[in-house]
Amino acid sequence: MKRLIEICGKERVTAPELIPQEYLVDSVTGRQGEAYALVFPLSTEEVVELVVYAQLADLSIIPRGAGTGLTGATLPVSSELLIDFSLMNQILGFDKETLTLKVQPGVTLADIQAYVSQEGYFYPPDPGSKDATIGGTVATNAGGMRAVKYGVTRDYVRALEVVLLSGEVLPVGSITEKNSSGYDLKDLFIGSEGTLGIITEIQLKVIVPPVTSQSVLIAFDQLADVSKTVLAILSSHVEPTALELFEKEGMAYSEKDLGLKLPLDSGAAYLLLTVDGQDPKEIIARYQTAIRLAETHGGIDSLVLTAETAVQVWQLRGNIVAGIEAVSQQEPLDVVVPLNRMTETIDFMKALGQRYHLPTVCFGHAGDGNIHGCIMRQHLSAAEWEKRLSQLLSELYHFISDQQGLPSAEHGIGLLKKEYFLKEANPVYVKYLRQVKQVFDPDNRLNPTKLF
Amino acid sequence: MKRLIEICGKERVTAPELIPQEYLVDSVTGRQGEAYALVFPLSTEEVVELVVYAQLADLSIIPRGAGTGLTGATLPVSSELLIDFSLMNQILGFDKETLTLKVQPGVTLADIQAYVSQEGYFYPPDPGSKDATIGGTVATNAGGMRAVKYGVTRDYVRALEVVLLSGEVLPVGSITEKNSSGYDLKDLFIGSEGTLGIITEIQLKVIVPPVTSQSVLIAFDQLADVSKTVLAILSSHVEPTALELFEKEGMAYSEKDLGLKLPLDSGAAYLLLTVDGQDPKEIIARYQTAIRLAETHGGIDSLVLTAETAVQVWQLRGNIVAGIEAVSQQEPLDVVVPLNRMTETIDFMKALGQRYHLPTVCFGHAGDGNIHGCIMRQHLSAAEWEKRLSQLLSELYHFISDQQGLPSAEHGIGLLKKEYFLKEANPVYVKYLRQVKQVFDPDNRLNPTKLF
Ligand SMILES: Cc1cc2nc3c(=O)[nH]c(=O)nc-3n(C[C@H](O)[C@H](O)[C@H](O)COP(=O)(O)OP(=O)(O)OC[C@H]3O[C@@H](n4cnc5c(N)ncnc54)[C@H](O)[C@@H]3O)c2cc1C
Ligand SMILES: Cc1cc2nc3c(=O)[nH]c(=O)nc-3n(C[C@H](O)[C@H](O)[C@H](O)COP(=O)(O)OP(=O)(O)OC[C@H]3O[C@@H](n4cnc5c(N)ncnc54)[C@H](O)[C@@H]3O)c2cc1C
Repeated sequence: MKRLIEICGKERVTAPELIPQEYLVDSVTGRQGEAYALVFPLSTEEVVELVVYAQLADLSIIPRGAGTGLTGATLPVSSELLIDFSLMNQILGFDKETLTLKVQPGVTLADIQAYVSQEGYFYPPDPGSKDATIGGTVATNAGGMRAVKYGVTRDYVRALEVVLLSGEVLPVGSITEKNSSGYDLKDLFIGSEGTLGIITEIQLKVIVPPVTSQSVLIAFDQLADVSKTVLAILSSHVEPTALELFEKEGMAYSEKDLGLKLPLDSGAAYLLLTVDGQDPKEIIARYQTAIRLAETHGGIDSLVLTAETAVQVWQLRGNIVAGIEAVSQQEPLDVVVPLNRMTETIDFMKALGQRYHLPTVCFGHAGDGNIHGCIMRQHLSAAEWEKRLSQLLSELYHFISDQQGLPSAEHGIGLLKKEYFLKEANPVYVKYLRQVKQVFDPDNRLNPTKLF
Repeated sequence: MKRLIEICGKERVTAPELIPQEYLVDSVTGRQGEAYALVFPLSTEEVVELVVYAQLADLSIIPRGAGTGLTGATLPVSSELLIDFSLMNQILGFDKETLTLKVQPGVTLADIQAYVSQEGYFYPPDPGSKDATIGGTVATNAGGMRAVKYGVTRDYVRALEVVLLSGEVLPVGSITEKNSSGYDLKDLFIGSEGTLGIITEIQLKVIVPPVTSQSVLIAFDQLADVSKTVLAILSSHVEPTALELFEKEGMAYSEKDLGLKLPLDSGAAYLLLTVDGQDPKEIIARYQTAIRLAETHGGIDSLVLTAETAVQVWQLRGNIVAGIEAVSQQEPLDVVVPLNRMTETIDFMKALGQRYHLPTVCFGHAGDGNIHGCIMRQHLSAAEWEKRLSQLLSELYHFISDQQGLPSAEHGIGLLKKEYFLKEANPVYVKYLRQVKQVFDPDNRLNPTKLF
């Protein structure tokens, strides 16, 4: 503690007994942890001093952004030192000529989007929680609503500065557009969930924003028809920005929670589509193609949304999880399967939920084959919930693996999916994950017990 | 040799004295090497047997595609076993629903483009040499003409099967659209120049092709104005597919070689632009914006190319290197700098050429800040050429590094740029490159002496 205070100053070090509960309780499981201390560095230099001290004092470290992660990845489980990046929140530079933005890891997504947009540019990755830090989204390779057209966080990271547990500062990537000069270590750190190195600076790529966009809501009687429509749209010239799928049943929780109604009442399942571009006429042609494709694949109704209803419908879509959490604890799923396995996967998830008497609501980024699901605990005792849930998840992740799918598309593995990830992943792959970890964190001090 | 014949059969093993010269002489430098043997495996299983044998017999290995690389990366320098992938050239499957193509590494780019296009889809990466194998383009992270809009090879690789020198078969990546399940080892192998593992199967992403495209040639009096126009276009809504820059001087070699003439005679430097999309009207608006931006940044003339002249102009552009090689040996450059450092970089390259009396022709993928240059030997003796060239390159790569640029955008480091790469790269970065190499190839058997 003394040394920590020397490094960061008294007001940026929190003793264990004063650490707020939100740092010590996992938001998903409610599991309680304990930490050595909580510190708020201001600079790369301070982070280097912290890791050097951790080495000397035989401490483990957990880097933490906004703590909005959904996999237990920031939960301290063995008295780790928590490094919170919320005060390293400076935008360090924006260069319109190279279209790059240099930031500290603690800048929030909301601040980045606002800053870039005010300058007339666009940072596309758009995961649900705008409080998330950019460091956290890089460390999880966060996705979000616009990934179908624009890709995920990985696609917008040009370069990183990483502090290793040795105290070395490792620059990876480059602000140039292209790079075939040495192994791509940058992509190793993206999505590494705070287990390989501590990200202390990020250079992002930004792009020119679309001029206009349009959302359309389409209703279906059957979920399978939504999936078929998605495949047809992806093989057409619609070029969707977003392709979100949800069921009436899941939407009902959100409607109730917000006191709003979806503007289409027919149907059991929905596709919410956005197209964007430069030319309003061309956009009309594209979403009309989408509506036509939906009609030939079982779509029963569609609504081209006004600007105002679009805001409401997207709000309803974004609130499904909160709507469910208003009535029950839930286990959030983030599975991803090949695009043509979505129907089978959702059917399987729902059947599994019925078999274990754990109601399962499905929705997701259909254009990416990324199905989020909420498995609801309802009034089960903790013991019964955990027992049923772990059996259900074992079956589910095994099925996902059989479909050539993965346990996480955009949230990461963390603590919650570790067991299932390790059971289903190829053993040679897991062996080399561990060896790569050895290279960068040989003493396993950095977010230990997470990922593997 | 006996064991090699057991593994591959007699007709797929070439003894050292029978290996054709093209395998033993570097196409750029003319440097002569020697190999242990040349083998042509047909399957992953054979490759595994070959690496196991290499281990026993204490041999090193060089994987080789079509040998079109420009960095000496396939030159055997210490009696390596050459593994040629040209017979592993099967397209293993195309799935229109998941938009993925599964291929062996020896399929040529020409074959992939033809196959995909016949099925109504599009594989965008388009480096100059269509004889290149897909394995070679993955191992170098090849770029090409369409990278401005569509990205590079890395952006189209979903998954790889890699044979490690241990004999293990390592699957990396996934055919799903997204993936946050474990470290991204896939991107480590992309661009690793045959030094980390042997790629034996590749799953590619394909996309829906644009409906129509249009090329425009714009003339300028000064190179600096081309760069300014490029920056303006990249910050506009033109959304270019290709943005190629060349000088009259370099183009003259190509014109002479092909017996063709560029359809614009005015100007000292040119920008060749392509836009593509779905709607011909919208495309017109976009290229007209580009022409307008060029006019306000010093453009003196422009020509919207007919389909026929476009073919000729692109042929002329693609032939610059061959045109130069028709008159002199040359050192091919592949530097990349931040987008706003192009003018300074080209000026520096040309001044350096003058100072060393080594004429230097510059052209490049201007939309990526990727400048190719040809440094011409002309009638210099080998000793004098090598002396001057190595001094020039030392100065050049140091300058590039000062500009936050890199020695290679798309060709890789190989043998030819190794010395300069290692001199300029961050030492912590190089240290960890070596440690990652240790993980996957601890005995340094795989393309040793290349990259570092
Ligand atoms: C309502 C809601 C909606 C969401 N919607 C989406 C969505 O659509 N798409 C999506 O992908 N995710 C979504 N998420 C999940 C979450 O927002 C993302 O995972 C986000 O990237 C986490 O950012 P954070 O700053 O909160 O990171 P944290 O939760 O604090 O940390 C996440 C991981 O990153 C590591 N980390 C954080 N900072 C650093 C650093 N500087 N260096 C190294 N490692 C670091 C941590 O150790 C941890 O492993 C949602 C979450 C909520 C609550
Ligand atoms: C006329 C011409 C134009 C060109 N234009 C471009 C251009 O526009 N853009 C561009 O990027 N490049 C260009 N190149 C360079 C070259 O075509 C690329 O580097 C290409 O990717 C090499 O493919 P290849 O099959 O010939 O590989 P090779 O030259 O045989 O090998 C290249 C590297 O890949 C490794 N490798 C090959 N196969 C495997 C495998 N299966 N597993 C592991 N490693 C392997 C080799 O060991 C070597 O390090 C051009 C070359 C020429 C001659």
